[in-house]
Amino acid sequence: MGVLLFDTMPKISLKGNWMPASPIRKLIPYAEMAKKDGRKVYHLNIGQPDIETPKVMLDAVRNNQLKVIEYSHSAGNESYRRKLVGYYSKFGIRLDYTDIMVTTGGSEAIEIAMMTCLNEGDEVIIPEPFYANYLGFGTQAGVRVCPIESSIETGFALPPISEFEKRITKSTKAIMICNPGNPTGYLYTRSELEALRDLCLKHDLFLFSDEVYKEFCYDGNEYVSVMSLSGLEEHAIMVDSVSKRYSACGIRIGALVSKNKEVMASALKFAQARLSPPSYGQIAAEAAIDTPDSYFEAVSQEYVARRDFLVNALNNMPGVFCPKPSGAFYVIARLPIDDADRFCQWLLESFSFENQTVMLAPATGFYSSPNKGKDEVRLAYVLNIPSLSQAMKCLEAALKEYPGKTN
Amino acid sequence: MGVLLFDTMPKISLKGNWMPASPIRKLIPYAEMAKKDGRKVYHLNIGQPDIETPKVMLDAVRNNQLKVIEYSHSAGNESYRRKLVGYYSKFGIRLDYTDIMVTTGGSEAIEIAMMTCLNEGDEVIIPEPFYANYLGFGTQAGVRVCPIESSIETGFALPPISEFEKRITKSTKAIMICNPGNPTGYLYTRSELEALRDLCLKHDLFLFSDEVYKEFCYDGNEYVSVMSLSGLEEHAIMVDSVSKRYSACGIRIGALVSKNKEVMASALKFAQARLSPPSYGQIAAEAAIDTPDSYFEAVSQEYVARRDFLVNALNNMPGVFCPKPSGAFYVIARLPIDDADRFCQWLLESFSFENQTVMLAPATGFYSSPNKGKDEVRLAYVLNIPSLSQAMKCLEAALKEYPGKTN
Repeated sequence: MGVLLFDTMPKISLKGNWMPASPIRKLIPYAEMAKKDGRKVYHLNIGQPDIETPKVMLDAVRNNQLKVIEYSHSAGNESYRRKLVGYYSKFGIRLDYTDIMVTTGGSEAIEIAMMTCLNEGDEVIIPEPFYANYLGFGTQAGVRVCPIESSIETGFALPPISEFEKRITKSTKAIMICNPGNPTGYLYTRSELEALRDLCLKHDLFLFSDEVYKEFCYDGNEYVSVMSLSGLEEHAIMVDSVSKRYSACGIRIGALVSKNKEVMASALKFAQARLSPPSYGQIAAEAAIDTPDSYFEAVSQEYVARRDFLVNALNNMPGVFCPKPSGAFYVIARLPIDDADRFCQWLLESFSFENQTVMLAPATGFYSSPNKGKDEVRLAYVLNIPSLSQAMKCLEAALKEYPGKTN
Repeated sequence: MGVLLFDTMPKISLKGNWMPASPIRKLIPYAEMAKKDGRKVYHLNIGQPDIETPKVMLDAVRNNQLKVIEYSHSAGNESYRRKLVGYYSKFGIRLDYTDIMVTTGGSEAIEIAMMTCLNEGDEVIIPEPFYANYLGFGTQAGVRVCPIESSIETGFALPPISEFEKRITKSTKAIMICNPGNPTGYLYTRSELEALRDLCLKHDLFLFSDEVYKEFCYDGNEYVSVMSLSGLEEHAIMVDSVSKRYSACGIRIGALVSKNKEVMASALKFAQARLSPPSYGQIAAEAAIDTPDSYFEAVSQEYVARRDFLVNALNNMPGVFCPKPSGAFYVIARLPIDDADRFCQWLLESFSFENQTVMLAPATGFYSSPNKGKDEVRLAYVLNIPSLSQAMKCLEAALKEYPGKTN
């Protein structure tokens, strides 16, 4: 006849515990402290470009005359979806507008694709390093992310198909790639993609392809979408987003694209539950399709100049190796350091060069295999060359001073 | 040595199959057909008000001078969160801005709350009829929704606590309510909420409270938030949204609110994975806090007049019963019909009154118990009185003509 004691602190879920903190954002408190100290921080840690959003988008929102901001169709405004058909045709992707569902950023497209296609406990194979939030979306969906290492020595080319074959089990339901790649900048060749296609057809796997950087392919290299690979119509699912394309990350508009009718019908049910994608974002995104080609030409030129500057600066530092990628606006660099997480935190907490420092993303967060990427960092070349130049001076000085340096 | 045949159509997930289609939206194709026939359709099926969005919100977006639409903080702009603290204090809810996370609509707040607090297979008890998408969010999270029936005879008051006690198992982790209620319009009394509080403390359950209709409480009745119940600080999680408050459903801004630090820290990890809530929506929502009281007074007056008109019209139809609710802008009515799904589809497919018809939501979609709500429909009084009047004329005529009528 004791006293009943109730635990008055309910427990959060296992998923809530397992959910990874964003490796890109977890150092933010240290960056805030550095700024409070009065140090300037160069943010190369996040893919937030300094490029201006096209005027046609900003104007469309500013000039809208809506009196009631209503829900849109759960799959997005039909007028926007129809315009997207024309946009994609420029890349050899032939679609009906019903093959396109507008989502709240590319993030939601991935969430919905995973829930639609994979059961709890199913496996998705992803070449690593990969965009860190894939692991978060996998955790949310109860899906197991199975990494296959790609190598900095080959510039993060597709691992051999034989390596994929080794990892395929009864639970494998999908392969996921990012093309052009975040965080690697690697652009898959047509033959790599055809090899993946054949593998997916052989084992009846979905091929999820995150192609949000499609406008950023350099040096005359060709972007090949999984949506243009013949024979893969039922297996290919493209994730897209306007965030990077138009430097409009905050409008939260993406797309889930597939010719698989069953996938799209199921995806729509998830979309209906959350009602609709943002209306203002759709106004901006629809207007964006009229962005003149000259905008992309100028932006590409700028990114190529930044990449060339950055890769050159990095490879000129003792002990640093950085492959030169053909797409997106990231590079992965190998540094002569003991531990990238420690180094990136130290840069913010303890380092100063002419009252400045630099914020980088430790590459460990882009690998799901333990102890991988410990001497690698991701740098986003989203700042102009004068800022990149200062940031590289900081990094070079830091590598001389860092207590955990290895050369 | 046979021929290897590969199934070239990958299967979607169980969740993708189980995910319920929206009962509010699944009749849309029939409504579209009715409109193509040239019939006018009165939409009482969805909570999309015709009320104008406050000018202060529209102007804030139109006058914004941003040149780059950047990501915001994953938890939302700090300036907006700080202003929300002041907004909530009007309702006796005392918060720190860190108790508030801005979400992409109330929908995302529910998704994140479920994933943060409940494991796969855990149970959440919800009085039914309930907002249909709770079932969808439960399906997404792998959570079992356990309904307890509330009765149209009592106007959908809280079922007896003894009924809750009967349903609590080892797997029960939360109770969820909507206050004021969608689809019932019911406003819980302080004593009902205190009884729920005591129950949650006794069994250490989270209490999720969807309070997106807080501004719409009529006839001098008091709105009591779970956030103002003493002793429930670690258990209470409020879901909020600006969609209905300001007739701004399309901006997709909501909030997850809790004083439980562990919950908020975990919720932030889910929020980080999806990067940020919409920027334009946050601009509008922050400006919305300056909406003058006169706006809500005028809107409340309008909704009360509509409710009174609608409830009166319904109860004057033979065989129809509709309790008069104190909040939100919905009513549930019992009709003399065989099957609400069939009736609502028939209204769109086969019925015409002066070349008009009415779209209603079958109540079956708001019950998870099978065969419940088959003679009930939900009506949203989101149209002006002249339109409601026409809609009621349609309904009255339809109830005389419908082949499945039961009186």
